[in-house]
Amino acid sequence: MSLTNRQLRLQSRPKGLLAPGDLQLLEAPVPELKDGQALARVKYLSIDPTMRVWMAADTYLPAVAIGEVMRAIGFAEVVESRHPDYRKGDRVMGLTGLQDYVVLDSSEKRGFQKVPKIPFVSDTVFLGVLGMNGLTAFFGMEIAQPKKGETLVVSAAAGATGSIVGQIGKIHGCRVVGIAGTDEKCTWITTDLGFDAAVNYKQPDWKEKLAAATPNGIDIDFENVGGDVMHTVMGRMNLHGRVVVCGLISGYNKEDPGLVSLGTVLVKRLRVEGFIIMDYASRFMEAATQLGQWKMFGKLKDRETIVEGLEKAPDAVNMLFTGGNIGKLIVKL
Amino acid sequence: MSLTNRQLRLQSRPKGLLAPGDLQLLEAPVPELKDGQALARVKYLSIDPTMRVWMAADTYLPAVAIGEVMRAIGFAEVVESRHPDYRKGDRVMGLTGLQDYVVLDSSEKRGFQKVPKIPFVSDTVFLGVLGMNGLTAFFGMEIAQPKKGETLVVSAAAGATGSIVGQIGKIHGCRVVGIAGTDEKCTWITTDLGFDAAVNYKQPDWKEKLAAATPNGIDIDFENVGGDVMHTVMGRMNLHGRVVVCGLISGYNKEDPGLVSLGTVLVKRLRVEGFIIMDYASRFMEAATQLGQWKMFGKLKDRETIVEGLEKAPDAVNMLFTGGNIGKLIVKL
Repeated sequence: MSLTNRQLRLQSRPKGLLAPGDLQLLEAPVPELKDGQALARVKYLSIDPTMRVWMAADTYLPAVAIGEVMRAIGFAEVVESRHPDYRKGDRVMGLTGLQDYVVLDSSEKRGFQKVPKIPFVSDTVFLGVLGMNGLTAFFGMEIAQPKKGETLVVSAAAGATGSIVGQIGKIHGCRVVGIAGTDEKCTWITTDLGFDAAVNYKQPDWKEKLAAATPNGIDIDFENVGGDVMHTVMGRMNLHGRVVVCGLISGYNKEDPGLVSLGTVLVKRLRVEGFIIMDYASRFMEAATQLGQWKMFGKLKDRETIVEGLEKAPDAVNMLFTGGNIGKLIVKL
Repeated sequence: MSLTNRQLRLQSRPKGLLAPGDLQLLEAPVPELKDGQALARVKYLSIDPTMRVWMAADTYLPAVAIGEVMRAIGFAEVVESRHPDYRKGDRVMGLTGLQDYVVLDSSEKRGFQKVPKIPFVSDTVFLGVLGMNGLTAFFGMEIAQPKKGETLVVSAAAGATGSIVGQIGKIHGCRVVGIAGTDEKCTWITTDLGFDAAVNYKQPDWKEKLAAATPNGIDIDFENVGGDVMHTVMGRMNLHGRVVVCGLISGYNKEDPGLVSLGTVLVKRLRVEGFIIMDYASRFMEAATQLGQWKMFGKLKDRETIVEGLEKAPDAVNMLFTGGNIGKLIVKL
């Protein structure tokens, strides 16, 4: 076999947004398969804010090493197999990395799982609603312990995770207010997803609008952003509120991704809890079953922003930070 | 009746430590009792860091108004009664305020409770181990969910609350490390109270000593101090650690009582939870029963720093911030 495998390798740790060359497109030969290996062609790549964290430093996972293929979750299809568990045509999801082909074997720790073909549903659902974003929203909302009638505010509300969080909030009977960065996003989450209100934080009067949209204060902050947006939300928290620290995208390009005032935590008896979705791996099937049901009954709507071509993946990562995508951001190979 | 009631009234909101005149000693006549009132002589006053908060601004309670008798918890004895529930000699605990006499009636919201005379135990136990400090330690440790073998670090460890927290940690089978500001305090908590280790944060090498005392990292931070001490403890937190935000004494004299890094909360999946003891009022009897048992069986030792004279109460408040007291700080009238 003499296929070429295009790969985006980390050449330098970005400062702020990715600069040209931080990820370098290189070509490698696709290796000959040994017994116990299978080769899969990557079809879709999930572009997530946490990739920026993986480029920067050791955190909940080791940083991607300089020279290594950039870590990413992807959807792939087996094209050749000398592995007893995989057959040609099998569809898998896992840490493919930013490349055209990935070799599957038994020793890899990249969490590959086979996924079924679901009629009338795009394969990309396994990267979004039924993938990491859905699971993150599901377990994050478990931490939030929403009660009927409470007010939930979610930031990055038109993002892949935030959009599901808000819909789960509605399933639980919450008043749901989303914070997003364009009027188009705000319209989408209120009109199509059923959020009760949306606030465009790029409008000068957004803080007043947030106050107007949360007349009874805020019980749950599902925080994806951090920084000034979070600070404003925190100022409206009710006693015994819960702050689920899911992401801090406003700070991923900076030295420290944000601070929270302990005075507020103390006086308002808040619970601020961080979580990483991998800790819930043993319960993924349970959550996926519930998410699948909700999806089937039309309670979870989604939307995708598709970027074509592996070489566009670095631009796609930057889109997350400049607000260019609505819903799930995917690179299609 | 023409008794004189000396009162410390709030004259100005302190900046930093209390300055002379922030609390002003004034004399008022003790009012004639009406039907449904009783008069109690204050014997002991509990001096607590939260008093500094009450002087500054509305928080979990309204700020003490300028001109008002300074709010404080005290122990008092009924000297005269026209109230059906009180008899001369009855002993009560509640928000007496910093004054010689307090009038009890049915309308007051100061949470007075009658307390028994316990043989061989000082009445001041109702201000400490069986009072707010014991209750705070008890419910704070409930939030912390200590597990056997975990490492608990408590700051202000030789204070009225911290010293009980550490002992409850030992009851739960934790490795307990206290942080305090003098060698005498460190010796007390290790030698007399059974803490596994103590670190004097005023020694230049205290951070190394904290690291040495917590070889397996820190699972629970029972935080009474905030600021640099907390920052250092946070840096050693284990995954899924709990930070109980009980007090932030290092910041009560400043604008903002401290910040916590959300990056740490996220990456280490921490739970940071604030609490105010009053929220647990409905469970005080349950906790006091347990605390009383522990006390009776010698599992909770205590120590007091007694300051004589109402006029010394402002100095006593400042002692909390300069580290002058060991154990429970009490003003005896």
